[in-house]
Amino acid sequence: MSEPIGRRVWAIAEGYIPGRSHGPAPEMTSHETACVLNAGDEEARVEITLYFSDREPVGPYRFTVPPRRTRHLRFNDLEDPEPVPRDTGYASVIRSDVPIVVQHTRLDSRQAENALLTTIAFPVDG
Amino acid sequence: MSEPIGRRVWAIAEGYIPGRSHGPAPEMTSHETACVLNAGDEEARVEITLYFSDREPVGPYRFTVPPRRTRHLRFNDLEDPEPVPRDTGYASVIRSDVPIVVQHTRLDSRQAENALLTTIAFPVDG
Amino acid sequence: MSEPIGRRVWAIAEGYIPGRSHGPAPEMTSHETACVLNAGDEEARVEITLYFSDREPVGPYRFTVPPRRTRHLRFNDLEDPEPVPRDTGYASVIRSDVPIVVQHTRLDSRQAENALLTTIAFPVDG
Amino acid sequence: MSEPIGRRVWAIAEGYIPGRSHGPAPEMTSHETACVLNAGDEEARVEITLYFSDREPVGPYRFTVPPRRTRHLRFNDLEDPEPVPRDTGYASVIRSDVPIVVQHTRLDSRQAENALLTTIAFPVDG
Repeated sequence: MSEPIGRRVWAIAEGYIPGRSHGPAPEMTSHETACVLNAGDEEARVEITLYFSDREPVGPYRFTVPPRRTRHLRFNDLEDPEPVPRDTGYASVIRSDVPIVVQHTRLDSRQAENALLTTIAFPVDG
Repeated sequence: MSEPIGRRVWAIAEGYIPGRSHGPAPEMTSHETACVLNAGDEEARVEITLYFSDREPVGPYRFTVPPRRTRHLRFNDLEDPEPVPRDTGYASVIRSDVPIVVQHTRLDSRQAENALLTTIAFPVDG
Repeated sequence: MSEPIGRRVWAIAEGYIPGRSHGPAPEMTSHETACVLNAGDEEARVEITLYFSDREPVGPYRFTVPPRRTRHLRFNDLEDPEPVPRDTGYASVIRSDVPIVVQHTRLDSRQAENALLTTIAFPVDG
Repeated sequence: MSEPIGRRVWAIAEGYIPGRSHGPAPEMTSHETACVLNAGDEEARVEITLYFSDREPVGPYRFTVPPRRTRHLRFNDLEDPEPVPRDTGYASVIRSDVPIVVQHTRLDSRQAENALLTTIAFPVDG
C-alpha cells in the first residue's frame, strides 16, 4: 500500500457555499468539501489557496493528512487566515508536498430537499 | 502564486438551460455556469463558441478574467452576439490566451427542489 | 473553428435508465444521455457498444454527428439492434472515426423531484 | 471488441454512505457504487482498498469482472474483510490486473427526494 498515488497540485474552478440550509446541522448544512486521499507512506502537508472574482487570493490554508489516510475537509470550517464567505463564488488550488488525490463535492440544502454535485479535481502537474 | 495552472482550450459537450424555474431569482433561477480560474499573473482573454444540433456555431463570446481571479460566467447572461436559447441542447468550446481551468455546473429548478450537476471540462490541448 | 477537438474512443462505466418517472414527458422522463460534440469539419461516424453484467455486449448502435454540431443522444431512444433495458446496469464504449468530446448525464425523476448527474466520459485513446 | 480499454489503478477520494434512506429498498436505499467496465477479453481480478481518517486502510476487498462485462458494485454490500461503516468519510483505491474503467456514483435518499452524484474515478497509472 506504499505506492505513491496522485499528483501534487490540483485545481477546482467551482466554489460556492450556499448561505442557507434545511435539515439538521452539521450533516445537512449546505457545504463544500475537498476530499483528500493520501495513499502514501509519508504525511502530506497541504496548502489551499482561494481565488475570488474581485480581490487578491486568500491563503494558504494549511493542514496535514497522515500517511494512508483520507481527510474530507469542509471549506465551511476554514478559519485561518479567514473564513470562506457564503453565497460567494470562489475557486481553489490545492498543493501538497507528496502525491494526493482530490475530489470536490457540494451538498446544497437551500431548498427542502438536498442536491449534490461532485467531480475529481483537475490535476495540474504532469 | 504566479505558476501557470491549466490549459488553453477546454470543451463541454453538455449544455442545456431549462426554460422554467422555481424559487427566488437570480439565485435559484435554472442556469448553467462556466467557472473559470485564472491563477496566473496575466489577464486571460477568453472566447466561448457554442455548438448546436441544427445550425452553425455561434460566437465567439468574449470576456476577460483578471490575473489571480475566478469568474463564474452564467451562460444565461451571454448576449453578444446573441442570447443562448432555453430548452435547447448545446455544447461549448472555451479558448484562452493563457492557461485557465474550466468547470461546468448546472442548477436545475424546473421542479420545486433544485438539482445540481458539475464536471471539470475536458482539457483539449496537450 | 476547424481544429480537431477531442478523442476517438470514450468509455462510460455507469449506465442505468430508471424505469419510472414523474413529470411531463419527454422533458422530465428519467433518461441518460451521451452528449457528443463534433467541433471538426468532417462528419463523425459514431458507434456505441453497450456492456452488461450477465450477457455479451450489444451493438454497435450507429449514428452520425455533422461537422460543427453537437448531438445529445438519449440512450432511451436507442432501438437498433435492440432497446436499452430499464432498471438495468450497463456501461458503454463510444468510438468515432474523427475526434469528438463525450459527456454523460442522467436525469432521474423516480421521485417527485428530479436529480441530475454528469461527468466527462473517460478518454480511452492517447 | 477485444481492445484493452482503461487503466489498472484508479482512485476515488470521496466516499460516504448515508445511514438513512427514504423509499423502497434496495433501489432507493442510500448507496455508493463503483461502476467497473471490463471491455477486454480476459477476466479482471479487482481489489479495493478503503482509506479512513483515523485508522489503517481496510482491504483488499476482492471481486472479479468477467471479460466484456460491467459490474456495478455497491460499497454497501462489501462484507469481507468487514462492512463499510455508514455516515463515515472514506476513500478508495481500485487495482485490477487488466485495464478497466471505473466510475463512482452516490444515491442519497436521506431526505424525501433523492440526490445523485457521479464522476469518472482518477486514473492513477500512466
